[in-house]
Amino acid sequence: MIRTRFTDLVGVEYPLVCGGMTGLGTAPLIAAVANAGALAFLTALTQPTPEALAAEISRTRDLTDRPFGVNLTILPTITPVPYDEYRAAIIENGVTIVETAGSSPEPHLPAFHAAGVKVIHKATSVRHAVSAARKGVDVISIDGFECAGHPGEDDVPGLVLIPAAVAKIDIPVIASGGIATGAGLAAALALGAEGVNMGTRFMATTEAPIHRNVKEQIVANGERDTVMVFRQFHNSARVARNGISEQIAAIGSRPGATFADVAELASGARGRSRVLEAGDLEDGMWWASMAQGLINDVDSCDAVVRRIIGDAESIMSKRLPGLLSDQDR
Amino acid sequence: MIRTRFTDLVGVEYPLVCGGMTGLGTAPLIAAVANAGALAFLTALTQPTPEALAAEISRTRDLTDRPFGVNLTILPTITPVPYDEYRAAIIENGVTIVETAGSSPEPHLPAFHAAGVKVIHKATSVRHAVSAARKGVDVISIDGFECAGHPGEDDVPGLVLIPAAVAKIDIPVIASGGIATGAGLAAALALGAEGVNMGTRFMATTEAPIHRNVKEQIVANGERDTVMVFRQFHNSARVARNGISEQIAAIGSRPGATFADVAELASGARGRSRVLEAGDLEDGMWWASMAQGLINDVDSCDAVVRRIIGDAESIMSKRLPGLLSDQDR
Repeated sequence: MIRTRFTDLVGVEYPLVCGGMTGLGTAPLIAAVANAGALAFLTALTQPTPEALAAEISRTRDLTDRPFGVNLTILPTITPVPYDEYRAAIIENGVTIVETAGSSPEPHLPAFHAAGVKVIHKATSVRHAVSAARKGVDVISIDGFECAGHPGEDDVPGLVLIPAAVAKIDIPVIASGGIATGAGLAAALALGAEGVNMGTRFMATTEAPIHRNVKEQIVANGERDTVMVFRQFHNSARVARNGISEQIAAIGSRPGATFADVAELASGARGRSRVLEAGDLEDGMWWASMAQGLINDVDSCDAVVRRIIGDAESIMSKRLPGLLSDQDR
Repeated sequence: MIRTRFTDLVGVEYPLVCGGMTGLGTAPLIAAVANAGALAFLTALTQPTPEALAAEISRTRDLTDRPFGVNLTILPTITPVPYDEYRAAIIENGVTIVETAGSSPEPHLPAFHAAGVKVIHKATSVRHAVSAARKGVDVISIDGFECAGHPGEDDVPGLVLIPAAVAKIDIPVIASGGIATGAGLAAALALGAEGVNMGTRFMATTEAPIHRNVKEQIVANGERDTVMVFRQFHNSARVARNGISEQIAAIGSRPGATFADVAELASGARGRSRVLEAGDLEDGMWWASMAQGLINDVDSCDAVVRRIIGDAESIMSKRLPGLLSDQDR
């Protein structure tokens, strides 16, 4: 067992989180992670309506008695999203932990806190993390340059970003991006984090609702097999390397490129879901962390969590103290 | 005391290295780090001739009885450098530890090994590290995306690069880039490294032979205050953010830019030495790691080393074991 302020606050066994992954955060995966003793998040916007989210919460509860949360990603969208109704569905259905990402969570904090919901906010820079902490979120999930999806535009990796955030923030900080192993968990705790968030590692599990071709490609890929796209539109996203992502990165680096030049190739979530559901690895892009270079198998969520915790415990109780001379131990 | 295969191999007290810094790696700094129990490297090419290097080795030995090394950076240069003569000066003057960087150290290994010299090779990717280990170097110093100077073109940070290298290499690996604190040392050891290399941290010491304006600027700078230059020439270098580095990065990102477009602005080592010696922070570029965001003071090498080791020991003996339940400890 590894106990931190984070595990105490959210009431989970291990300081290990499966963060919100749009399209993937549905009942079977989330319940499997919860049953393994870690904290996972349903993704609100994966559900077409607040009512569907309520049903998914109920479906998850049928599969586990342990705590789980809901991710609410707040983004500017063309079609308005009824965020307040999703928020109400979260509260009314008794969920007590929420992960927010994207824009400021401020408008949602009074309602969440009045209902006793703990809010974990994802931030990609120290200044945004400090601002969110000041606004009253309960935990910061600090997301480094290595991460899958949107790392921001500062390019500061976890080895520097985690301790820089911890130095400026009093509430618990969990580390996100580039972590997939027990060694990564132990390192994040050494850097002052009180837990870690992993996405790509949980994609390569038996229970992840994606095609097995993708899971096997994550295992096959090395740490260099990601591509940064959309950089020039100030909306950088780290995705797995394939023909499409390399083409988009190349077009985007041409002078004067606009999003219209890559829009058809990118084709947003539809392209991603073609890959994730049908398993045609060249039919779209999907998010991937550099941590895929540290993932060597597809296994059950339970086995993955047990191995990560066991490895971290062994590093913390044996390897590191074993390097100290007797007088320091 | 923290004892690893690396400290045993090179015979130093602490698994802490001040890597070669051209222009800075001269006797007073190197001896001060050695006297503090860490391993530091004179830089061979800072000395105009092999004879001058021999004199600098002798000058360092007057200041310390403890082990120190020499860095030999092997680069393609317009004026041929007498590498074999520098190598002979290292061996003949009884130095037993060498740090190589740049091109392959292979041509120099037989002579070094015949003389009992241990070779630490700096690599910025797993594949180059694996190749150097196969050629027979004794230690790999794996250098992440966060680092000052040349991180290579793969952009893989330490949190992923360190464990990825450790997984593929049997000889000791030390972690370089983004580390300036005891927490960073403990994290690197958790990730499987057997020591850490730091540069920027040792620039901000009393003994570093650079103008105090630069030291104070390192303390003032945050983790976002570095700029990557020369990316488009496949010779990326991370330098401190100032007017010149921002201009060079901007010019370099124009379509069709060539090195000639930035050569005058960059003006190579001369510009750097104007900054480092005269302290005019806008008169050239200097290398800086993102770890400058974790550096809060200028202090003596002895105080810096003692604090880093003390903090790491405390994390390894108290903080991390303290997070485990009794049954795991």
